[in-house]
Amino acid sequence: MYRSHTNGALRLADVNEEVTLSGWVQKVRNKGFMIWVDLRDRYGITQLILDEERTDAAVFETAKSLGREFVIQVKGTVIERVSKNPKMETGDIEILVSELTILNASKTPPFTIEDDTDGGEELRMQYRYLDIRRNPVKNNLIFRAKVTQAVRNYLSSDGFIEVETPYLIKSTPEGARDFVVPSRMNEGQFYALPQSPQTFKQLLMVGGMDKYFQIVKCFRDEDLRADRQPEFTQIDCEMAFIEQEDILNVFEGMTRHLLKEINGVEVGDFPRMQYDDAMRIYGNDKPDIRFDMKFGELNEVAQHKDFGVFNNAELVVGIAVPGGNSYSRKEIDKLINWVKRPQVGALGMVYSRCNDDGSFKSSVDKFYDQDDLAKWAEVTGAKSGDLICILSGDKNKVRAQLSALRMELAERLGLRDPKVFAPLWVVDFPLLELDEETGHYHAMHHPFTSPKPGQMELLDTNPGEVKANAYDLVLNGNEIGGGSIRIHDKQMQATMLKHLGFSDEDAKAQFGFLMDAFEYGAPPHGGLAFGLDRLVAILGGQETIRDFIAFPKNNSGRDVMIDAPAPIDDKQLTELSLMLNLKS
Amino acid sequence: MYRSHTNGALRLADVNEEVTLSGWVQKVRNKGFMIWVDLRDRYGITQLILDEERTDAAVFETAKSLGREFVIQVKGTVIERVSKNPKMETGDIEILVSELTILNASKTPPFTIEDDTDGGEELRMQYRYLDIRRNPVKNNLIFRAKVTQAVRNYLSSDGFIEVETPYLIKSTPEGARDFVVPSRMNEGQFYALPQSPQTFKQLLMVGGMDKYFQIVKCFRDEDLRADRQPEFTQIDCEMAFIEQEDILNVFEGMTRHLLKEINGVEVGDFPRMQYDDAMRIYGNDKPDIRFDMKFGELNEVAQHKDFGVFNNAELVVGIAVPGGNSYSRKEIDKLINWVKRPQVGALGMVYSRCNDDGSFKSSVDKFYDQDDLAKWAEVTGAKSGDLICILSGDKNKVRAQLSALRMELAERLGLRDPKVFAPLWVVDFPLLELDEETGHYHAMHHPFTSPKPGQMELLDTNPGEVKANAYDLVLNGNEIGGGSIRIHDKQMQATMLKHLGFSDEDAKAQFGFLMDAFEYGAPPHGGLAFGLDRLVAILGGQETIRDFIAFPKNNSGRDVMIDAPAPIDDKQLTELSLMLNLKS
Repeated sequence: MYRSHTNGALRLADVNEEVTLSGWVQKVRNKGFMIWVDLRDRYGITQLILDEERTDAAVFETAKSLGREFVIQVKGTVIERVSKNPKMETGDIEILVSELTILNASKTPPFTIEDDTDGGEELRMQYRYLDIRRNPVKNNLIFRAKVTQAVRNYLSSDGFIEVETPYLIKSTPEGARDFVVPSRMNEGQFYALPQSPQTFKQLLMVGGMDKYFQIVKCFRDEDLRADRQPEFTQIDCEMAFIEQEDILNVFEGMTRHLLKEINGVEVGDFPRMQYDDAMRIYGNDKPDIRFDMKFGELNEVAQHKDFGVFNNAELVVGIAVPGGNSYSRKEIDKLINWVKRPQVGALGMVYSRCNDDGSFKSSVDKFYDQDDLAKWAEVTGAKSGDLICILSGDKNKVRAQLSALRMELAERLGLRDPKVFAPLWVVDFPLLELDEETGHYHAMHHPFTSPKPGQMELLDTNPGEVKANAYDLVLNGNEIGGGSIRIHDKQMQATMLKHLGFSDEDAKAQFGFLMDAFEYGAPPHGGLAFGLDRLVAILGGQETIRDFIAFPKNNSGRDVMIDAPAPIDDKQLTELSLMLNLKS
Repeated sequence: MYRSHTNGALRLADVNEEVTLSGWVQKVRNKGFMIWVDLRDRYGITQLILDEERTDAAVFETAKSLGREFVIQVKGTVIERVSKNPKMETGDIEILVSELTILNASKTPPFTIEDDTDGGEELRMQYRYLDIRRNPVKNNLIFRAKVTQAVRNYLSSDGFIEVETPYLIKSTPEGARDFVVPSRMNEGQFYALPQSPQTFKQLLMVGGMDKYFQIVKCFRDEDLRADRQPEFTQIDCEMAFIEQEDILNVFEGMTRHLLKEINGVEVGDFPRMQYDDAMRIYGNDKPDIRFDMKFGELNEVAQHKDFGVFNNAELVVGIAVPGGNSYSRKEIDKLINWVKRPQVGALGMVYSRCNDDGSFKSSVDKFYDQDDLAKWAEVTGAKSGDLICILSGDKNKVRAQLSALRMELAERLGLRDPKVFAPLWVVDFPLLELDEETGHYHAMHHPFTSPKPGQMELLDTNPGEVKANAYDLVLNGNEIGGGSIRIHDKQMQATMLKHLGFSDEDAKAQFGFLMDAFEYGAPPHGGLAFGLDRLVAILGGQETIRDFIAFPKNNSGRDVMIDAPAPIDDKQLTELSLMLNLKS
C-alpha cells in the first residue's frame, strides 16, 4: 500500500501521527522558504507543508520540481494548521513532510482539474480520464453506483432474481435498428445486440422465474439525437401472475424508496393520469407536474367570432402564464418568435393580458370582446397579472407546440426546481400509433403489449383507438420507465403481429420461439424497464445523461478518447466472410 | 395479483384460510371420485384436492381436463392433510378447491419437468424456457444471483465503485479474436465488443477512481472448446496506490466471505505457491490441492541404470496413488491405456507396487532393484499399499500428462469432494510465453502486466525467464481469478509492446490513448478479474458453467432456442456498407 490514509481522512485527532499519503498534486504554492502542496485523491484533499527550516534540503528541492497532476507519495507528521480552513474536511491539519517520492510525473493537463474547468466538452471527452478526476464527474459516477446498488438491493430484498440474458441474440426488423455482429463460425450469419432483453425476460416468465430483474446494457443504432447514446443501461423487470396494478405498486415502491434513500425526499402516492388526459391537459405524454399551467381548450369560447385562424383550427388551446402580464411587448414578441422557430413550428401566437383591474387586453381585440376574454381566462385558469398564450391548429401539432412553450416558460420562471420531485403514472396508452409517412400502424410500446380486455375487436375497425395495458412512469417531465402487461396467448400474439404487418412467415421466423413458448403454459405476465442513465441524472438533479456515463459517445456515436469505431484488418473481414461496400 | 400466496408458503397454521393460488400443473392423480393436483411455482409445490362430494361438478369436470404444465388459478380452503408428506415444506396441508380457472393450456412438454428429466441436452437447450422450470436449473440461476449480489455488497462496502465501461469499443489484434460491430454512421468502420474492460479500468485508475469493480459481460470469438462461451461474465476489479500484496488480501477476503456466506465454509489464510513450484509439484498452474499426490522428480534415482526410456528423458516424474497396490494388472493396463489416449499423449507408463511387506514390484524390475524402487517411494512419498505411476519425456509435456493422470485418479478415488474448498494463490507467473508455432513470445497475462522489479533487463537476454507481478486465484483445480500489477509508465509500456512485436505505429494506433494517459499522472495500479460463471459453478459444487447460465450457447456459438445467429436483410447489409464474401 502506498498510503496509510486517504487524503480525506485526517483530522485534528490525528495530530502527531506519522502518516504516508499518496495522490495527485492539485496545487503548489511556493513562497520561497515555504512550500504548500494540495494533495488530492478520490477521498479529498490534504495540505502538505515543507519549509527550509524543518524539511530536508533534498526533499525541499524535489518539492520545488512538482507540477500539477504529478503523482507523489509523502511521509510526514500530522500537525495542526495555524490558519484553519473550515471549508475543507481536512482543513484543521496539514502534513509536515519528511519524505517525498515522485511516483509519476505529469505533463501539464490540457484543462484544469477543477470543479469549474476551462476545458470544453470535446477536449474533456478526448481526455475523459482527466475529466473523471474532477469532482463533478467523479461524484456523478459514484452517485450512479449508489443508485444502482440501491435498486439492486431493493429488488433483491423483494424476491426479484437478477438473471443475465444474452448479448449475442437475433436481429429483428421491428423497432429501432439493431447493431449486428457478424459470426465467424456461422458463415454469412449475424448476431444482433439487444435493444432490450424483452423476449428473454418473457421467456423467463414462461420458465417460472416469477420475478426477474436485470441492470443491463442495451443498444440502438439510431441517428443520435441530442443526449441519446447508442448504448444505454436499463433496469429491466418482469413479473408473472400479476396485473397492471401490481406492477405499478411494486415500482412505485421502488421509486419512492430511491427518492427517500438517495435524495432524502418523502413522496406520497404517485398520481395516475390517463394518456388521453395527459395529452389534453399537458399536450404531452410525459408532463412535468411540478408546476401548473394546464391547457385550457378554447374551441367553444373562441370559434364563434370572425377570427378565421381560430375558426379553421382543429384545436384552439391556451395556458395561463403566472405573472406574465408584466412581460413587455418586446418580451412577448420574443415569445412569439420562439414558438415560430422551426423546432417548435407554430405559425403564430395569440395572447391576452389579464390586467390587475380585471380587464383584458389581447392581440385579437379586433375580434373578441371582454366577455370572450373573461371566458378564456376562466377556461385557462388565468388570474389577474397572468398572460394567456394561445396556439391553434392541427390538434396533435398544436398540443406539442404549446407543451414546448409551457416547458420553456416554466424554465424561465424557475418552476423546474431539480430538488422537487413530482412522479406520475401515465396509463392507458394507445396500443398502436399511426406512422404518418407510411400510413401504417405500428406498436406504440412494442408488439408484445396486451390490449385492454375487450378492445381486441376494435383492431379491425378503429385501430388507433385501442388502448393498451401500458404505462409510463414520469418524473419531472421525463419518462423514466415504461412497460406493459404482455400478451401470453399464442393466437392473440399472432393476430397482433398480423395487424402490425408481419406475414405469417416473418412472424414465425422472428418470433416463432416466443409463440412456441406460449403453447407450453405461459403465465399472465408483465413488466417495466427504467432508463437508468436518465433516472440517475434526474435523481442527481441534472438532465444530461452524458454527465453520468463514465465513457460516453458523442453525437456521431464515436468514442473520441479511444478513437472508435475504426477500420479493421482485411484479414479480419475475410475471416468474417465480409467485404466493404462503401458508398463513397 | 393472481394469487394470495405462493405455492411454497402455506403451513398447518394457515388451515381454514381461504386462499388463491396460481401456478403450473406438475402432476394430476385422478382416482375417479377424487382428483389431486400438484401445483408448482418458483417457490414450491402445493397439493390441491377436488372430490365429487365437496367440489362443484363443473369445477370437478374442469379439473379432469387438466394436463401437465397447464397454468391454472384456484381458490379454496387450506385443510390439514390426512396423510402428510414430511418431504414437502407444504406437506402438512392441501387446498380443497372451490374455483378453478385455466389461465393457459399447455401442449405436452417435450421432456418431463422433473429434477431428473428425460430430456437430452440439445432438446433442453431448444426449450430452455421449460428447462428453467426444473429445480436444478432454476436453483442454479437463483444461486448465481445470490453470489453476484454478495460480491456486489462486499465490494461496495469496501469502498469499491461499480462503474459501467462501454461495450462498443475498439478492435485490438492482441489476444483472442474480437467480435466486431459494423458502424452504420461511420462508414467502413467497426466497433469491437470488449474481451475485458482492461484498458478502461486502467483509465479509471488514471482518472482517480481508486477502487473500481464491475460485473460485466465480455466477449471472445474463439473456436469454442467444451464449456467455453463466446460471451461470459467477469467480476472485474482494479485498485490504485496498491502493491500485489494488497490485491491478494482484498480478494482473498472477498473469496473467504463468499465461502462463508454462500457455502457456510470457513477457510483460513490461502496458501501461496510460486508458478514454478506449482508446475514442478503438480505439473499445472492451477493445481487442485484438496488432495496430495505431489510429483516426485526421479531423474537422480532413475537415470543411473540401463533403462533407455528414462535415460533419454528430460524428466522422469511419478506420483504415489494411495491404495493403488490393490489395482489388478488389468486395472493398471487400463490406466496405461488411459495415459496413452491422444488427449493425454503419454507413450507409456512405468509403475511400481508398494507391497505391504515393504517390498516393491515394478514394471521395470529388469532394470531396477529394490533399493532403487525404495528411493522412488521415498521421493514420491509412497507408502505400503500405494502404487507409484511414473511418466517420462519432455519436461513440459510429461508434467501435463502426469497432471492429467493425477486429476483422473483423484476423481476415481473420490478425492475431489465438491463440498471441500481449497483455494490457492499461484504467484510469480512468467511475463511471456513462447508460442511454439511462431517462435514468438507473447504476453502470458496481457501486454499491460508489469515485470517484477529489476527483471526488465532480462527481456533482451532471456525473455522466458522474466517473472511478472501476476497472480491467479485457484479453487479446487480451477482458475477462478487472475490479475497483475500493471505498467503505469509510458516508456516501459512502449518497451513491452515492442518486445511483443508491435511496431511503434501499431502500438500508437492500438494503445496510444492508454500511453498518452500514462503521461498525465498515472498512479501505480493493479487488479484482478474473476470468471463469474466458473466461480458460481464451483461454489455451487459443479464444474459445468453452462448449467449456471440462463440462455447459454452451444459449441458452435449458436443459441438453438432463438436460432441465432441468422442471416440479415440485404438492406441491413447495404446500410452497413457491407457485402457478404462467402467462402463456400
